[in-house]
Amino acid sequence: MPTGRWYSRDSGGCGMKTFIHGGTVVSATGSQPLDVLVDDETIVAVLQPGSTALGADLKANADVVIDATGKYVIPGGVDGHTHMQMPFGGTEASDTFETGTRAAAWGGTTTIIDFVVQKPGERVQDTLNLWHQKAAGQCAIDYGFHQIVGEVNDESLKGMAELVSEGVTSFKLFMAYPGVFYSDDGRILRAMQSAGDLGALLMMHAENGIAIDVLVAQSVARGDTAPYFHGTSRPWQLEEEATHRAIMLAQLTGAPLYVVHVSAKQALEQIAAARGNGQNVFGETCPQYLYLSLEEQLGAPGFEGAKWVCSTPLRSRAEGHQDALWRYIRTGDVTAVSTDHCPFCMKDQKELGIGDFSKIPNGIGGVEHRMDLMFQGVKNGWISPERWVEVCCTTPARMFGMYPRKGVISPGADADIVIYDPNGHTSIGYGKTHHMNMDHSAWEGFEIDGHVDTVLSRGRVIVDGGRYSGSTGHGRFVKRGLSQNLI
Amino acid sequence: MPTGRWYSRDSGGCGMKTFIHGGTVVSATGSQPLDVLVDDETIVAVLQPGSTALGADLKANADVVIDATGKYVIPGGVDGHTHMQMPFGGTEASDTFETGTRAAAWGGTTTIIDFVVQKPGERVQDTLNLWHQKAAGQCAIDYGFHQIVGEVNDESLKGMAELVSEGVTSFKLFMAYPGVFYSDDGRILRAMQSAGDLGALLMMHAENGIAIDVLVAQSVARGDTAPYFHGTSRPWQLEEEATHRAIMLAQLTGAPLYVVHVSAKQALEQIAAARGNGQNVFGETCPQYLYLSLEEQLGAPGFEGAKWVCSTPLRSRAEGHQDALWRYIRTGDVTAVSTDHCPFCMKDQKELGIGDFSKIPNGIGGVEHRMDLMFQGVKNGWISPERWVEVCCTTPARMFGMYPRKGVISPGADADIVIYDPNGHTSIGYGKTHHMNMDHSAWEGFEIDGHVDTVLSRGRVIVDGGRYSGSTGHGRFVKRGLSQNLI
Amino acid sequence: MPTGRWYSRDSGGCGMKTFIHGGTVVSATGSQPLDVLVDDETIVAVLQPGSTALGADLKANADVVIDATGKYVIPGGVDGHTHMQMPFGGTEASDTFETGTRAAAWGGTTTIIDFVVQKPGERVQDTLNLWHQKAAGQCAIDYGFHQIVGEVNDESLKGMAELVSEGVTSFKLFMAYPGVFYSDDGRILRAMQSAGDLGALLMMHAENGIAIDVLVAQSVARGDTAPYFHGTSRPWQLEEEATHRAIMLAQLTGAPLYVVHVSAKQALEQIAAARGNGQNVFGETCPQYLYLSLEEQLGAPGFEGAKWVCSTPLRSRAEGHQDALWRYIRTGDVTAVSTDHCPFCMKDQKELGIGDFSKIPNGIGGVEHRMDLMFQGVKNGWISPERWVEVCCTTPARMFGMYPRKGVISPGADADIVIYDPNGHTSIGYGKTHHMNMDHSAWEGFEIDGHVDTVLSRGRVIVDGGRYSGSTGHGRFVKRGLSQNLI
Amino acid sequence: MPTGRWYSRDSGGCGMKTFIHGGTVVSATGSQPLDVLVDDETIVAVLQPGSTALGADLKANADVVIDATGKYVIPGGVDGHTHMQMPFGGTEASDTFETGTRAAAWGGTTTIIDFVVQKPGERVQDTLNLWHQKAAGQCAIDYGFHQIVGEVNDESLKGMAELVSEGVTSFKLFMAYPGVFYSDDGRILRAMQSAGDLGALLMMHAENGIAIDVLVAQSVARGDTAPYFHGTSRPWQLEEEATHRAIMLAQLTGAPLYVVHVSAKQALEQIAAARGNGQNVFGETCPQYLYLSLEEQLGAPGFEGAKWVCSTPLRSRAEGHQDALWRYIRTGDVTAVSTDHCPFCMKDQKELGIGDFSKIPNGIGGVEHRMDLMFQGVKNGWISPERWVEVCCTTPARMFGMYPRKGVISPGADADIVIYDPNGHTSIGYGKTHHMNMDHSAWEGFEIDGHVDTVLSRGRVIVDGGRYSGSTGHGRFVKRGLSQNLI
Repeated sequence: MPTGRWYSRDSGGCGMKTFIHGGTVVSATGSQPLDVLVDDETIVAVLQPGSTALGADLKANADVVIDATGKYVIPGGVDGHTHMQMPFGGTEASDTFETGTRAAAWGGTTTIIDFVVQKPGERVQDTLNLWHQKAAGQCAIDYGFHQIVGEVNDESLKGMAELVSEGVTSFKLFMAYPGVFYSDDGRILRAMQSAGDLGALLMMHAENGIAIDVLVAQSVARGDTAPYFHGTSRPWQLEEEATHRAIMLAQLTGAPLYVVHVSAKQALEQIAAARGNGQNVFGETCPQYLYLSLEEQLGAPGFEGAKWVCSTPLRSRAEGHQDALWRYIRTGDVTAVSTDHCPFCMKDQKELGIGDFSKIPNGIGGVEHRMDLMFQGVKNGWISPERWVEVCCTTPARMFGMYPRKGVISPGADADIVIYDPNGHTSIGYGKTHHMNMDHSAWEGFEIDGHVDTVLSRGRVIVDGGRYSGSTGHGRFVKRGLSQNLI
Repeated sequence: MPTGRWYSRDSGGCGMKTFIHGGTVVSATGSQPLDVLVDDETIVAVLQPGSTALGADLKANADVVIDATGKYVIPGGVDGHTHMQMPFGGTEASDTFETGTRAAAWGGTTTIIDFVVQKPGERVQDTLNLWHQKAAGQCAIDYGFHQIVGEVNDESLKGMAELVSEGVTSFKLFMAYPGVFYSDDGRILRAMQSAGDLGALLMMHAENGIAIDVLVAQSVARGDTAPYFHGTSRPWQLEEEATHRAIMLAQLTGAPLYVVHVSAKQALEQIAAARGNGQNVFGETCPQYLYLSLEEQLGAPGFEGAKWVCSTPLRSRAEGHQDALWRYIRTGDVTAVSTDHCPFCMKDQKELGIGDFSKIPNGIGGVEHRMDLMFQGVKNGWISPERWVEVCCTTPARMFGMYPRKGVISPGADADIVIYDPNGHTSIGYGKTHHMNMDHSAWEGFEIDGHVDTVLSRGRVIVDGGRYSGSTGHGRFVKRGLSQNLI
Repeated sequence: MPTGRWYSRDSGGCGMKTFIHGGTVVSATGSQPLDVLVDDETIVAVLQPGSTALGADLKANADVVIDATGKYVIPGGVDGHTHMQMPFGGTEASDTFETGTRAAAWGGTTTIIDFVVQKPGERVQDTLNLWHQKAAGQCAIDYGFHQIVGEVNDESLKGMAELVSEGVTSFKLFMAYPGVFYSDDGRILRAMQSAGDLGALLMMHAENGIAIDVLVAQSVARGDTAPYFHGTSRPWQLEEEATHRAIMLAQLTGAPLYVVHVSAKQALEQIAAARGNGQNVFGETCPQYLYLSLEEQLGAPGFEGAKWVCSTPLRSRAEGHQDALWRYIRTGDVTAVSTDHCPFCMKDQKELGIGDFSKIPNGIGGVEHRMDLMFQGVKNGWISPERWVEVCCTTPARMFGMYPRKGVISPGADADIVIYDPNGHTSIGYGKTHHMNMDHSAWEGFEIDGHVDTVLSRGRVIVDGGRYSGSTGHGRFVKRGLSQNLI
Repeated sequence: MPTGRWYSRDSGGCGMKTFIHGGTVVSATGSQPLDVLVDDETIVAVLQPGSTALGADLKANADVVIDATGKYVIPGGVDGHTHMQMPFGGTEASDTFETGTRAAAWGGTTTIIDFVVQKPGERVQDTLNLWHQKAAGQCAIDYGFHQIVGEVNDESLKGMAELVSEGVTSFKLFMAYPGVFYSDDGRILRAMQSAGDLGALLMMHAENGIAIDVLVAQSVARGDTAPYFHGTSRPWQLEEEATHRAIMLAQLTGAPLYVVHVSAKQALEQIAAARGNGQNVFGETCPQYLYLSLEEQLGAPGFEGAKWVCSTPLRSRAEGHQDALWRYIRTGDVTAVSTDHCPFCMKDQKELGIGDFSKIPNGIGGVEHRMDLMFQGVKNGWISPERWVEVCCTTPARMFGMYPRKGVISPGADADIVIYDPNGHTSIGYGKTHHMNMDHSAWEGFEIDGHVDTVLSRGRVIVDGGRYSGSTGHGRFVKRGLSQNLI
């Protein structure tokens, strides 16, 4: 008889039944004690603990029984914004789909949506196929794709319709990075017209890259080359401006707009105002913008700040952006919290920018820590457990057309389930205590008053008790529908 | 073998099992095909249709089987604002707890929260007891109480704490009706301090009654005595003003504030602004403010407009209040939709105000029609089915501390369930086609593209197929906790 | 031959000509070198320096010649808010019309508008007559009256029309001080209706006195009795609230609204918003709110803070009210700067409140220092010289219907002229260095980088070179017209 | 003895004295009866009518005496936005400096500021010289220049400093017209940095030209080629957006920003918000946006609408832009009213766009009618006479650094004076009743309840009693200083 928290009578094939009992299921609307029955990959029943009405002893009949007494039972995390092995600035994000999704699993995230990159001259369909090849057979957890449209033209616009039918229903443009991903306002307008026609979501990196490039060049020219100046040359005004611009173009075209990685409170004010007017505008933020700052991290001595070079940049704590973002999570104007996981090692990667911050690859790795970091917000009294589940699991699933397959503990849903211990503890230690393929972490030294105990992906326990039991290739592509979260 | 939509193998006592299959469960976050098993009064399981994992034939074992194929299965409606047999202006609201709750049941509402009235000189505890006596053994469905504090003083403030422990966790004050329910700002401040300390909800009728009384007197004095002038003597400025005042007093004291029956878009702008700042402020509206208007209804020929005399008043359609309110439902700034059911007959009641609108008893009856009227908003494309359930069922339950016992289809919840036919039809005919104790209806002539087919209250079918099978006294008092809907 | 800055060839009676040359005339729109010719009491010509086109040697022909080389020549200050010898809280403001207007003259103010007080049971016309008697033959400079309507009723409303025809065109109500000056919202509404009909200005002390009285009583009850708690028991929320309420009542009635002594930035946000909508709403502030604070002054050790007990109270510097008010002066949302001069001595007056701040007479004396204090804002780079003249002289004159008789250097205007030295210096020393009838000053220790050199009141030099040459009774009542400053 | 309204004793050369008596001088702050003495080109005295204090009979001694009894005496109009003989779209604006300034004079405008055009590859200094050559010896009235910077680069940025020292202190960029005048945001940023450093004004044509070009091409492609579609392909969202963008770039750089020809109310909301925050942002509008509309003028039958093709376009009356703009004039958020005079004939010019609105030269001629059209706003009760003078004369002069030489009736000022009859009448007839070099007028059929009687330019009567007495070349270049209108 097993003595651990869970045991399996039968590890065998399909049809395996898993029974999770004793825990408190947390949904976006409330928390209550509930048992959960999983059949193979799917939740098939949610039950009142102790009820005998079913006339069946579910625990006795289960192949796997998980005792969640004293724990939260929540939907697996949905991280709507990752960049695995993304080519960027002459290098490539250091996590493969294999390493990155495994790290995600460790942290209680069971679905990611990664970005396919189309560059000028390429067909979007071809790039999607390429990304399918990269990911297929590699992932520990389920995954979907957004499509970056790097070149808006007649062909790529037609491609958007095709992709929607293939389950890629969201399209990202960049107002930043001229010469790389940048689209001018005419191209944005056209893509938004198409998105509006299709009902597809337009995702936007909203920074005024044309103006930023001037400031960056001026900063470097006057010798302000340390990582700190990455932040000062991307001032909040240029995020606020681009956000407003995207909102007005969306207003004109009817496209639903999802602004990624918002870090400036003024940008969120613009989003909140548009939402108040009933416009389908959504703001995403990431843990780094909620906890870290220009002064403390980007301004670390020497080249240390390079670890936190990402765009949009970390913002000034003195200006109060971090507190404001937490408030916007409470008010619902931040719709979802993702990681923008885009890991680069210091060695050979971040180091490219020694002496010139503009050469530092932009990105922070965090896919492993999102659920923990956001739970700390619960512990700190900044958000409720329900809001934690909502912004990390349920709303991303709805936002990106995967509900109720993902994001909810409900019969019919994929059995992506996390047993979270609200009284546990997680140290994000220094050195290589994490599972991402990085030689450092942006979160070193953070102590979390909670712990991911057990993770199920489509019915299979892949993490439990500090042991990884998942397998490369278990994760499948999720064909998504249109957004279910429109106002 | 039964041929109807539902059949019972065993009509006998407690322990009866009810199985609802084939329907689409609509929750605040999404819709999906789910079967529901009820044991006695409680939902005990929610199940994937067709799953055999349970190893039990629930349908075969059920005492009652309801086929919901093609229908919505939703939580029973929660109407957070009713006034059964309320004394007002020398008369009394015409529905008793018996007639009013029966009418509610007909319309798919399975919980009401009614208002206990404390007048100067009375102890709040005594008035609560009196209302308990009025309701006990009379109700067709479950019911809770809010407490109207008509006189704020040391004793009533102490009484608030006592009431919270007895499950009455929300307290209503009036900025209108000087000499009747009116509290001045000092009393409001004190009550809000107490509410803030208790964590209890402060409900507010937000109209500047002192100024309104001047306008009313002036209107009558110059001969403008028809029902229409009820509306013009309560201009939106005086609702907006009072709403803002209540918000600032709440801001100062930390009390959670719930503004009842908001009808002016400018008042909702104030609420939306406060919510954007993270303040616990909530706006309630009612179907009458969403569909009816100053011009069309209050301005009806002769004394006809008296049917729609209520406060806050119906607003001008030309000014666009109705459309704005629908938008605020979409944005979430309207938190809940209730009825403010306060029925008066024309004969002997409304007629008191012939020749002087200020003598018309204020109130509209609608407890029976809320679920239908709001569903029509779904049909019209103004809100989603999820938002319908959210504002009519789930959020009221959370707002008033009854979740997950009420407001959700989930194991552990009371089996308050409505089978709603989204392809049915309901005519709110002229004359006495409704079940409220009124000699007219505010909604005569409305055609609804949906239908309440079946209603269960705590597991018992009380309405089905146009037949009422409930019983007086089935409804029980719901002891409520503190609000679960704070920002 | 005289050696001073000015000399008179002929001190004799009427018809005396005064020629001011060499200075820079500052108006609300610009500054330029101009000579000014005064005939008797009136400016009769403004001239290009050195022009011979007139064919007359004005300097040679003048009786009095003032050399203003290197100096500003500005219109005499207009202080729209003073309380000379006002009865308040069982005592009386310590400046008489004689001492107060003489102190004003010393500081470059040549017109005040003082408040007539009507109390319940009195006829407004009678109180105006009483104030005429108090002031007649006493004043060093010209003066007008506002009427405080302490009791709004049919008779006082009729009195308003009468007073307008007698040159008293502005009426003040109080939302503070219940039981003393307080009007409820119904009375405010009626008074605003009358003001709207007359086109007269409604002035408002906007603080929620009913709520404040509760906070005051609670503060005293818990032993928080020091002057500091005067500030904390009048929080900004209750000023903001009352300001908004006044604005909405004005919006409803069409009355032009002038909110006196605004100190909270949030109240000014309300005013700015109303102005942006085109409503005739105006905000007044005073030097004390621009320079002094809750922490520094009201929070002074012991009973010292009593010097600065006034209502609205000084606000927290940490909250940034002072900086915001200066900004609102720049943007024009602060329409005028007055003093709310209401002096009380520490001995026998302020001391009434030892041990209970609520007994401290409310008021700060400052009529002597306004022009200097505001000029320091010019020196500090916060406002332009033009804006200084605008908010201290020109706009108050227009606001209160005295333009172009007052507030401008223009032919036809009364020769109320100040020669101000922008390179001079004024120390507001400790002890009795000022001329107000107070045993202390709220401004002790302030150093001003400018100096009032010479003051003319209706053509007569009354202050020059540190010498007072005015006379009691020179000042005359100014019969005012309706406001000339409406949007 | 002359019998006309004015007579000259001596038409001879310099030193001529002109005396204007009996009129009411209207300034930005008030109106009063004043006489004005002009010596040669300059106002030398402003006098109280009837005063004998001067000891000189000015009327008798004057060479020219103008009886202004019953008339307004106002500063000559300052039109801060004209395009004489500007090259545009393969043609040239049809008014030369000679014809255009003569038409201006007819309409009471005595100063224009015209735009020098720099195109890529040209030196700004060279283009300024070229424009000096075009204008020198041609103008009926005084004129200044703004500089259009068509290509922002190191050389043109350096040129800005040089131009400031030559009296060209304002620089215009375009967010519209890609490939012609368009600057991208990086160039705008750099130009604003320079303007901020210099304290010079940055003027902006704020429309998102990149997005507009897409809409224009789409409109033409689908056969929507009539003038009406000029309006619909430049929607308000793209003006609001660009306005906001310019404001944020200005906020970042500290440049004072003047947004030209604002027509969308939402753009003015952005400007008003920035001004409320204390930012130096200014909005200009033009009579066409105050009176004309998308529906009525641009939507005229056939090709008629081409007369009103200008950018920004006329806006929809149904959306309420026109009323909102008038309100913003009252609130001061519209700082100045200019004409954007850019005349094209229908024949050979506007006709270029038959069958393709995008080929219609953009521009409306109106330099002659501004003072009249805005005075009609006074007659209609929308603005006061003072505000009329302020937005048409005084503020433009201050805004562009010409005060008090221009924009005010004050000694030392240029004697640019208009005698305006507020009881006169002006018909802007059909056909060639105007004096602009156009074969039509945008204002045909407008009836004005006022009349420009007499116009003096630097002391010389150039229009009187329907007769033009000016001369080509009388007008001189005005070397301007920095703006005197900053917040």
